Amino acid sequence: MTLTGTMLIGQQAVAGSREAIRAIDPATNLTLEPAWLGGTLAHVEQACALAWAAFDRYRETSLDARAAFLEAIAAQIEALGDELIDRAVSESGLPRARIQGERGRTCGQLRTFARTVRAGEWLDVRVDNALPERQPLPRADLRQRQVALGPVAVFGASNFPLAFSVAGGDTASALAAGCPVVVKAHGAHPGTSELVGQAVARAVKQCELPEGVFSLLYGSGREVGIALVCDERIKAVGFTGSRSGGIALCQAAQARPEPIPVYAEMSSINPVLLFPAALQARGEALAQGFVASLNQGAGQFCTNPGLVIARQGPDLDRFIASAAQHIWQSPAQTMLTPGIYSAYRNGVEDLSANPNADTAAAGLVGDGPNQCQTHLFVTSARNFLDDPRLRGEVFGSASLVVTCADEAEIRDVAEHLEGQLTATLHLDDADLDAARALLPVLERKAGRLLVNAWPTGVEVCDAMVHGGPFPATADARSTSVGTAAIQRFLRPVCYQDFPDSLLPAALQHGNPLHLRRLLDGQREA
Amino acid sequence: MTLTGTMLIGQQAVAGSREAIRAIDPATNLTLEPAWLGGTLAHVEQACALAWAAFDRYRETSLDARAAFLEAIAAQIEALGDELIDRAVSESGLPRARIQGERGRTCGQLRTFARTVRAGEWLDVRVDNALPERQPLPRADLRQRQVALGPVAVFGASNFPLAFSVAGGDTASALAAGCPVVVKAHGAHPGTSELVGQAVARAVKQCELPEGVFSLLYGSGREVGIALVCDERIKAVGFTGSRSGGIALCQAAQARPEPIPVYAEMSSINPVLLFPAALQARGEALAQGFVASLNQGAGQFCTNPGLVIARQGPDLDRFIASAAQHIWQSPAQTMLTPGIYSAYRNGVEDLSANPNADTAAAGLVGDGPNQCQTHLFVTSARNFLDDPRLRGEVFGSASLVVTCADEAEIRDVAEHLEGQLTATLHLDDADLDAARALLPVLERKAGRLLVNAWPTGVEVCDAMVHGGPFPATADARSTSVGTAAIQRFLRPVCYQDFPDSLLPAALQHGNPLHLRRLLDGQREA
Repeated sequence: MTLTGTMLIGQQAVAGSREAIRAIDPATNLTLEPAWLGGTLAHVEQACALAWAAFDRYRETSLDARAAFLEAIAAQIEALGDELIDRAVSESGLPRARIQGERGRTCGQLRTFARTVRAGEWLDVRVDNALPERQPLPRADLRQRQVALGPVAVFGASNFPLAFSVAGGDTASALAAGCPVVVKAHGAHPGTSELVGQAVARAVKQCELPEGVFSLLYGSGREVGIALVCDERIKAVGFTGSRSGGIALCQAAQARPEPIPVYAEMSSINPVLLFPAALQARGEALAQGFVASLNQGAGQFCTNPGLVIARQGPDLDRFIASAAQHIWQSPAQTMLTPGIYSAYRNGVEDLSANPNADTAAAGLVGDGPNQCQTHLFVTSARNFLDDPRLRGEVFGSASLVVTCADEAEIRDVAEHLEGQLTATLHLDDADLDAARALLPVLERKAGRLLVNAWPTGVEVCDAMVHGGPFPATADARSTSVGTAAIQRFLRPVCYQDFPDSLLPAALQHGNPLHLRRLLDGQREA
Repeated sequence: MTLTGTMLIGQQAVAGSREAIRAIDPATNLTLEPAWLGGTLAHVEQACALAWAAFDRYRETSLDARAAFLEAIAAQIEALGDELIDRAVSESGLPRARIQGERGRTCGQLRTFARTVRAGEWLDVRVDNALPERQPLPRADLRQRQVALGPVAVFGASNFPLAFSVAGGDTASALAAGCPVVVKAHGAHPGTSELVGQAVARAVKQCELPEGVFSLLYGSGREVGIALVCDERIKAVGFTGSRSGGIALCQAAQARPEPIPVYAEMSSINPVLLFPAALQARGEALAQGFVASLNQGAGQFCTNPGLVIARQGPDLDRFIASAAQHIWQSPAQTMLTPGIYSAYRNGVEDLSANPNADTAAAGLVGDGPNQCQTHLFVTSARNFLDDPRLRGEVFGSASLVVTCADEAEIRDVAEHLEGQLTATLHLDDADLDAARALLPVLERKAGRLLVNAWPTGVEVCDAMVHGGPFPATADARSTSVGTAAIQRFLRPVCYQDFPDSLLPAALQHGNPLHLRRLLDGQREA
């Protein structure tokens, strides 16, 4: 395998002709070879045309064939071996063990979706048999299944070069649903993207699928991305990134003659609520766990605990002091890109200069470039509620403790939060009533609620929700992690009075796929 | 029961102070008493505040309590007796039997959602038990359920004064999901709306629910409606009506600081494809069935067959001649409102004057005001593809036959259709291959596909899809009729490592609701 600096339009390696994209090793600020020339509108057009041409056939692949394709992608990614790991480490500055773990997660995710595809529950088959004798009117034979929405545009994320990128959760769930995918690579890890893209393209060929099932484009700036979202053959968008980027895509999608759904995962500060009994009983342990979560991946997690809410008093003071101790000893970590580092530094400087917040602790200063220095700030509930500058996300290892006078103020702070991916409660038995009283607020605010745990680390499973009300995501009805993510790329179609020979297999009278259908109002055993 | 001319803000009858709304009997053009003064922004504010105050309690009502509420609404509507029927007939001009049938459908719909609520499948409970020994990392205990989105704004539709109005499908499904509802009454049937609104309010009281679960506002113009959609406490919108109205609501919802989903059901011409063998074997019977469907409810159905696509030739000529025979004898029917009649007349006049279409037949002219005269037009595929004026919806008993030279032209016409609620195929065995070849196109275009049936008449059942790609609806992922409509008003929440005593009943370890959960990847029996 050698990196070629080309895009993938179906099975063709195609060189762009726009501004070059080069990866930078954030640990050294050195530029990595090769360069990828950006794609043009013609390349977007070609990729979308191929995706459209592939759509009708790909969406009717058998459950087994589609699952085997997802498994083939996983195997092809694993076959890339150390070359992929080396390149991803160079391009991201992330530790090798983390990248290895992320590869495992990415391939596990593809295999999990393969199992989900085979199980077939996502087809949500509903059958209402004809009732020709019913009075006053007979009932027709009605059968519903889910079908794929159409080609999906996926935007790779900076912070998970494997698990939320070219063959990450958005791609895996869209392919599982039967949607061809056109990926726009993230400019921070073009080499990782090309390697993974080649793996996917090999799986397409190996499984004898139409080539348009997968394409991979590059482009600096917004031209390629916006053109992709605006192409009439694209029917949904998956995105993980900044609030401004996500909103721009949503607006472009809504302005189309045919608006389409955008699943943008954008901004979350992930409040952590420390209840009194827990804070009193184990403030030091909580501080240690908190700082470990805050420092994970240099804080570059969507679920980084960026906000701590608790009642003021000596127990909270002890928690802050203990957290400060850990932070003072926290080594700096390399951030993903010079741009992310610069935004982090600006965010931290703004908070440091803000008279409404105090700096409680800062971590060790790093040696090289792009070093994330952990920061902890403290403010009052009143200041937090009054000053919107305290409520924005600072992407990185920075967090803010909000000290509240009483339970009412805690509730007030919670009620004024924007939508979140997660909300975390640390509590002991004596805190249960207070926690129960606050739960309805948190359920309205977040997609995932945790008790005595930390929000970093998102399990890929059936029950996971990585989503939440705006601006955590653009669509609170969905999750971008876990098997329920497949539902984002489906729509229902009803077949009335169809002869068996015209029905798709999932709906045929003999139930050849052995699905547990909702049959005349009853779930089949 | 007497009509009071007031709105309902929770349990309070409140008089508006804006421009008066009066019903008009379209059969006579006489104004009906009383008048309803339109609501103000303060009334919107009050209704939304009450809905918000009711939300946390209402969304956690037990499955039984919520189902009993839906059943109580149905019983209260039935208890209105003939007063409701009389008023709805006067306000809509629809035949008495149709209104009686629609009441049955409306109450049946509420009871169907009660059954759906009790069955609990909509909670989509997923449990992944903790795996503390898993390597390299343990798995947390993760549990997912669906929760209500929040208060929902529902806009009554003109064409179904009961089934798509104050207590229609949008309201029933939102209430079933656990969402309080604020209805904006349709100005065409204010008395029917008040009667039904009072029935709902009585059910709220009878079931001892918080009063904000239901409010009913009036307003001419767009002020009340747009204010409702823009209120930060409203979290979703249900609408059935015109394309321009639906798009305006979508844009208002997207422009909010927190955008919200709009389920707008807007525009569909419901293509009917006549395949050669069927056309040859039973052209006359098809013509009879077609005209009966076209004339149903003066064509004022979302699923009215407004387009017929077939291959040119003597069989199609015979179909057209036979349809013309039926149309020439079709009595005129009273349309719902002077406005709808006027739009229909303009649409028909535009088509009559369009050199790209020929008038094949016109029905009998009516005596009174607002009389819908059935119309059938004919055009060629080439004209249809070239002239966008032929592709718009004319709401009423008008339809257009598109004559195609060959199968390729039929495919071309189908591929250029906008999104549709329905697509209908009339075929015999000899047509199966041609139909099969066209199915992928139609699946992409429509929410419901029918074989040898007519699209008017929408069954309320599990398998129904009353939805489809834009502009049929604003959200192709949903249906507004049938039990799957409940999913529009839900979002997933995941609970991680929660003690049993903090978990909602649906997620508790003992499964007290006896749900068939997705448990560690397997569906429970």
